[in-house]
Amino acid sequence: MPAFSRFTPLVASLPSTVPFVGPEAIERQTGIALKARIGANENGFGPAPSVIETIGRAALETWKYADPENFELKQALAAHLGCKAENVAVGEGVDSLLGLIVRMVVDPGTPVVNSFGGYPTFNYHVAGFGGRLVTAPYEDDRENPAALLDAIRRENAPLVYFANPDNPMGSWRSAAEVEAFARALPETTLLVLDEAYIETAPEGTAPAIASLIDLPNVIRTRTFSKAYGLAGARIGYAIGAPETIKAFDKIRNHFGMTRISIAAALAALEDQAYLATVIDNIRASRERIGTIARANGFQPLPSATNFVTIDCGRDGDYARAIVNGLGARGVFIRMPGVAPLNRCIRVSAGPDADMAAFEEALPEVLKTL
Amino acid sequence: MPAFSRFTPLVASLPSTVPFVGPEAIERQTGIALKARIGANENGFGPAPSVIETIGRAALETWKYADPENFELKQALAAHLGCKAENVAVGEGVDSLLGLIVRMVVDPGTPVVNSFGGYPTFNYHVAGFGGRLVTAPYEDDRENPAALLDAIRRENAPLVYFANPDNPMGSWRSAAEVEAFARALPETTLLVLDEAYIETAPEGTAPAIASLIDLPNVIRTRTFSKAYGLAGARIGYAIGAPETIKAFDKIRNHFGMTRISIAAALAALEDQAYLATVIDNIRASRERIGTIARANGFQPLPSATNFVTIDCGRDGDYARAIVNGLGARGVFIRMPGVAPLNRCIRVSAGPDADMAAFEEALPEVLKTL
Repeated sequence: MPAFSRFTPLVASLPSTVPFVGPEAIERQTGIALKARIGANENGFGPAPSVIETIGRAALETWKYADPENFELKQALAAHLGCKAENVAVGEGVDSLLGLIVRMVVDPGTPVVNSFGGYPTFNYHVAGFGGRLVTAPYEDDRENPAALLDAIRRENAPLVYFANPDNPMGSWRSAAEVEAFARALPETTLLVLDEAYIETAPEGTAPAIASLIDLPNVIRTRTFSKAYGLAGARIGYAIGAPETIKAFDKIRNHFGMTRISIAAALAALEDQAYLATVIDNIRASRERIGTIARANGFQPLPSATNFVTIDCGRDGDYARAIVNGLGARGVFIRMPGVAPLNRCIRVSAGPDADMAAFEEALPEVLKTL
Repeated sequence: MPAFSRFTPLVASLPSTVPFVGPEAIERQTGIALKARIGANENGFGPAPSVIETIGRAALETWKYADPENFELKQALAAHLGCKAENVAVGEGVDSLLGLIVRMVVDPGTPVVNSFGGYPTFNYHVAGFGGRLVTAPYEDDRENPAALLDAIRRENAPLVYFANPDNPMGSWRSAAEVEAFARALPETTLLVLDEAYIETAPEGTAPAIASLIDLPNVIRTRTFSKAYGLAGARIGYAIGAPETIKAFDKIRNHFGMTRISIAAALAALEDQAYLATVIDNIRASRERIGTIARANGFQPLPSATNFVTIDCGRDGDYARAIVNGLGARGVFIRMPGVAPLNRCIRVSAGPDADMAAFEEALPEVLKTL
């Protein structure tokens, strides 16, 4: 049977796809139940007990729509960040915000710059609005501001994506480098500075909120999915100049947030003591992943995130075989998508049991290769 | 401070807006706490106790992303509806699905047909993608298939919205009329048949699932927000031909659903006994709203939904004064947006306390007018 015959030429031309195959799909395909879910940079340490309690209470109000203005959460985020509520937009995860940002700027054929091997979901949205992706290579496993800037100037691109810290490599640039990059951009280029992993980065990684907030061509994105342990609740937010942030209200799904997620985010934000504990746990887990990597002859890359990217020293086929071998043993991890990054595997921080499963399975897999 | 200078001409031209002002915003504006929240067609009877319990358990897994394929929910919906999983797409409420459908079909300037006074959020999405809205008038407070068809043919429109039952009027067309309308459409026109309120409609309102599922130019949308009492959980779904439904996978936010909402939807679907009880409660509440309306000299319109639209017999200013007067007494209701529909007010079914608050406040308000 054919599809509807009159989709836009753009939509008709797009593939039906899932940017990331989820662990549930892997379980369905392999028939193997996962022992360790350390592939999607979720946070197995979970949200605070205070957040779980809040969700239980909020369940009783889930017959009500959430406030479409997200007033309370924007106020709380503004207080937390030291900016104003008008500097903040809230959305159904950073992925949703990225889609809206791309829509704000991209018409069919518009050039958009990302690092080669950078976040695939951003690229998915660029393709989805007909943009033309232009890439700049990583430099020593880090995004390269100079190369990105060259590409922007060459293409007169109105949009660039920069993750700090970076996914999939776990690397980072200093606040000073990021700020210099933002200020070097033409004012006709919008920078998406994706700081999804900022809470686990070293001091001096995030530019001060005040330092970029007056630039109309910078939007920073952050999330409750990583350090706050709420990936399944889909809460992302964007920070920027008021007039730029207002653009979200032109096109967003105003009633898109769930009421429980808003309550969970408010509770998570209040429990900074728990967050500090989780960040300690993530750091310890990163160390352990590094130790396991070295014990198997691999090189862990420095990480500012809740995962460690491990250089396996060979090519993408080899790393893929490791990912698949671990999957067959119930250990779900992922890997970067393109060379030379795909010589690596990527392992999320997690509780001891997950680390033990990884530690046990990795040498078994390597023996088979 | 200016906004970013290089938004697309379309986005630059759009207003920043909220399609519906939420009750929380009204509370912030008036400083009056709401006693009765019966304006947004939420379901104050709430979800099943089994759903609340499920949410409490699912909270412990909210550190995990939901399955981006929504496999389990699509299977359950297909079993419930008597179709295949490939006939179903899941999204963050019908509003989100409407945005995706509009995006599938609408380029700047594309004509799109809706009833004059029909669902504003659909129109918001049409404007958001640069479509040109063409309207056909209601006929005796019901959507008019013949007039819609005329507009479609005149404009060669590729997209039409039809809600059955209708919001804001609560009216409905028979399954036979809807099916005839769908089959009369040019195959180059996509029908969005929004059945958000279908569970509370009389027998014979919904065409059989099988009757339309082979038409590539029909997408039916349904929701857990109304009869299932889960508005705050944002779970909508679309039903259609497999090749047409596949288009959602080209552009949707694959990781957009919250894990708790998916669990809640599965539990809600299983508890059909509770749903039947709620539908009885809604019917009784509709009767009571009608009785209150008549006691105050107004005419309740027949309703197949979880609300009753009440003809106040005068103009929009008069109805608006009633809405505002009730709001000032802590009773939140809404009204249709355009004449002649706006001679009415719209009151959602709800528990006895809500009805009592409405019953008490309405004559007080009328005395002041």
